[in-house]
Amino acid sequence: MQQDQEEIRQLVSKWMAATKAGDTETLLSLMSDDVVFLVPGGIVMHKAEFAAAARSQSGPNAPAFEGTSEIQEIKILGDWAFMWTKLVVVANVPGNARPVKRAGHTLSILRRQNGKWVLARDANLLAPVSGE
Amino acid sequence: MQQDQEEIRQLVSKWMAATKAGDTETLLSLMSDDVVFLVPGGIVMHKAEFAAAARSQSGPNAPAFEGTSEIQEIKILGDWAFMWTKLVVVANVPGNARPVKRAGHTLSILRRQNGKWVLARDANLLAPVSGE
Repeated sequence: MQQDQEEIRQLVSKWMAATKAGDTETLLSLMSDDVVFLVPGGIVMHKAEFAAAARSQSGPNAPAFEGTSEIQEIKILGDWAFMWTKLVVVANVPGNARPVKRAGHTLSILRRQNGKWVLARDANLLAPVSGE
Repeated sequence: MQQDQEEIRQLVSKWMAATKAGDTETLLSLMSDDVVFLVPGGIVMHKAEFAAAARSQSGPNAPAFEGTSEIQEIKILGDWAFMWTKLVVVANVPGNARPVKRAGHTLSILRRQNGKWVLARDANLLAPVSGE
């Protein structure tokens, strides 16, 4: 179980690094095919939509993302797990004077597939941080 | 597992009825002592804060809540489960001409304690619905 926790922490590190690098293919390899992303306001994103959105944000005019993730809790439940993190993401959009900062929590469901942990469900509670 | 699914559906029904009735004690009996509520923007609420907030919203000037919950997914993982719902909550605040409608998804972790399913972690992605 200690090793599962460590593998999930590595998954989060890889996710943050791939987000920063704009590496969509790596991000897609870190999630299940039936992944569901939930954000405030009723929007549901599946893997295909995630891929389209991530690819539209790559290229020379792509925003540069910086993020920090503090894991609050990981609970292993056999081949499944849940994780609560505290997340800050700063996007520097080319041409914009000010970076856009978003902060909040995530509650995620992870799954072990072929011996490898991947993201399966994700509730993203980030909201804009004003006054910064 | 079929019975667990049914018990969790009943938990959701009881939760909605207790919310509508302003029955804080019943709501508190439907969650674990270490429950964590996450909402957009970084706020974390534990059981004591939930109780205080719920009690402050009871009494003759309390808002009247109406809600509908559509369960999208329940996955049983032994003595744990996760659930994804689509939720609409309408609050009628005394003195306000218009009700306040909020809609969105929830991702929740449930736990079986002493043979009874209770809410353990909850990400609430509801956002105001404008134009209604």
